Amino acid sequence: MRIALGIEYNGAAYYGWQRQQSMPTVQGMLEKALSKIADHPVQVTCAGRTDAGVHATGQVVNFDTSTQRAEPAWTLGVNSNLPSDIAVRWSHVVDETFDARFSATARRYRYVIYDSPTRPAILASGVTHIYHPLDVERMQAAAPALLGEHDFSAFRAAHCQSNTPFRHIQFIEVTRRGRYIVVEVMANAFLHHMVRNIVGSLIVIGQGEQPTSWLAELLAGKDRTAAAATAKPNGLYLVDVTYPERFQLPRWHWGPVFW
Amino acid sequence: MRIALGIEYNGAAYYGWQRQQSMPTVQGMLEKALSKIADHPVQVTCAGRTDAGVHATGQVVNFDTSTQRAEPAWTLGVNSNLPSDIAVRWSHVVDETFDARFSATARRYRYVIYDSPTRPAILASGVTHIYHPLDVERMQAAAPALLGEHDFSAFRAAHCQSNTPFRHIQFIEVTRRGRYIVVEVMANAFLHHMVRNIVGSLIVIGQGEQPTSWLAELLAGKDRTAAAATAKPNGLYLVDVTYPERFQLPRWHWGPVFW
Repeated sequence: MRIALGIEYNGAAYYGWQRQQSMPTVQGMLEKALSKIADHPVQVTCAGRTDAGVHATGQVVNFDTSTQRAEPAWTLGVNSNLPSDIAVRWSHVVDETFDARFSATARRYRYVIYDSPTRPAILASGVTHIYHPLDVERMQAAAPALLGEHDFSAFRAAHCQSNTPFRHIQFIEVTRRGRYIVVEVMANAFLHHMVRNIVGSLIVIGQGEQPTSWLAELLAGKDRTAAAATAKPNGLYLVDVTYPERFQLPRWHWGPVFW
Repeated sequence: MRIALGIEYNGAAYYGWQRQQSMPTVQGMLEKALSKIADHPVQVTCAGRTDAGVHATGQVVNFDTSTQRAEPAWTLGVNSNLPSDIAVRWSHVVDETFDARFSATARRYRYVIYDSPTRPAILASGVTHIYHPLDVERMQAAAPALLGEHDFSAFRAAHCQSNTPFRHIQFIEVTRRGRYIVVEVMANAFLHHMVRNIVGSLIVIGQGEQPTSWLAELLAGKDRTAAAATAKPNGLYLVDVTYPERFQLPRWHWGPVFW
């Protein structure tokens, strides 16, 4: 039997998603808790392997088990075996054609900036603090240049393992609520560090250090070294993954946005 | 010289606001950091002494110092001496008639409920998790009964030290955004546990265990033992304190609200 789970986590305390021998990771914690409930070793496949310090409200995984359990075992039961900063939101039995990574047709990320002369104390590890005021209208003017299918080499980490630099951004929006600025991006998939590299360059534009046309220029130039530094992981959340309707996965709120 | 500060904190790690000999408290941490910058022992007066586990985005304090420092010393300088879950938002020089507690004309609290069959992982200590679905319309129907000046004995902690049970609620609102329900209350002042006791009874009404008229009945009955259990501290935030215009204190966003 194949089961899909919706997973939420605060990544601040973890060395990223992916299982590691001696470091605490989200995958490691989740597999340990699932193995306890399943009563056999469980390995999960995820929709998006997030980096160290990155969070998720809408991560999706799948795993196989021969163990029959009532549905609450895979949510409440697993949760009681997880630390307080990782939680299963929902579980759903899927057929064997479902793969959390390869069945996904789109991913949505939110990047939360706290734009303030003083640092935050609430959810300090869950936002990226920028001291100098950002002009959101400049960021809004720049962002649409990334819409559509492009070679995103300018925003790709050097060690990215994808065999193509092409991705399709379906949605990108910059909004402000008080001191919080949220950059929301949806694409078929993302290159390694792609959201954080885009946000890093948007911040430079918001600070007025580059013109609003700079994002389009970077995209056309395909040169990672020309773009801004990678934005910190603190503010990044994987908030949603889209799958074909036929899998009938539950739909949840994306969160978090603060004001 | 008297200085007012706006203070934000995640109260999860502290034994409440008030200084204690051997326990970490928000006041204790703040006074230690201020004393370092002032180079003499500093004692602060606050607008509202929050309980253990209660948070603030809009706490206000004042203290006296003879030390001359540029303004950033009292914000950025103090912040670099505070743990990451406490921060100064702003500082402002006030005249000696200002008292964070007695000059305040109103306090505003937000109580954040996470209404979900599974527990939260993001800001787990910053929301109150309710497993069973709440009917917000019932809570909205009940709440306005508390508006105005009343004897709030029904919602007053047994050990409350106020010499009167009368308070004036100027504003009360229940809103839902996805799985988050926020109860926002503003009053001239609050009795001990008053917000958490009101929310506790609103939750029982939202769960359908009591009629929407119950809140008005409790208020009229003035009997604390008739009302529901005190709601947990996790979801409670002191978000704003009102002072007379002449003090010209900075106005900040209230936050946090999530969806």
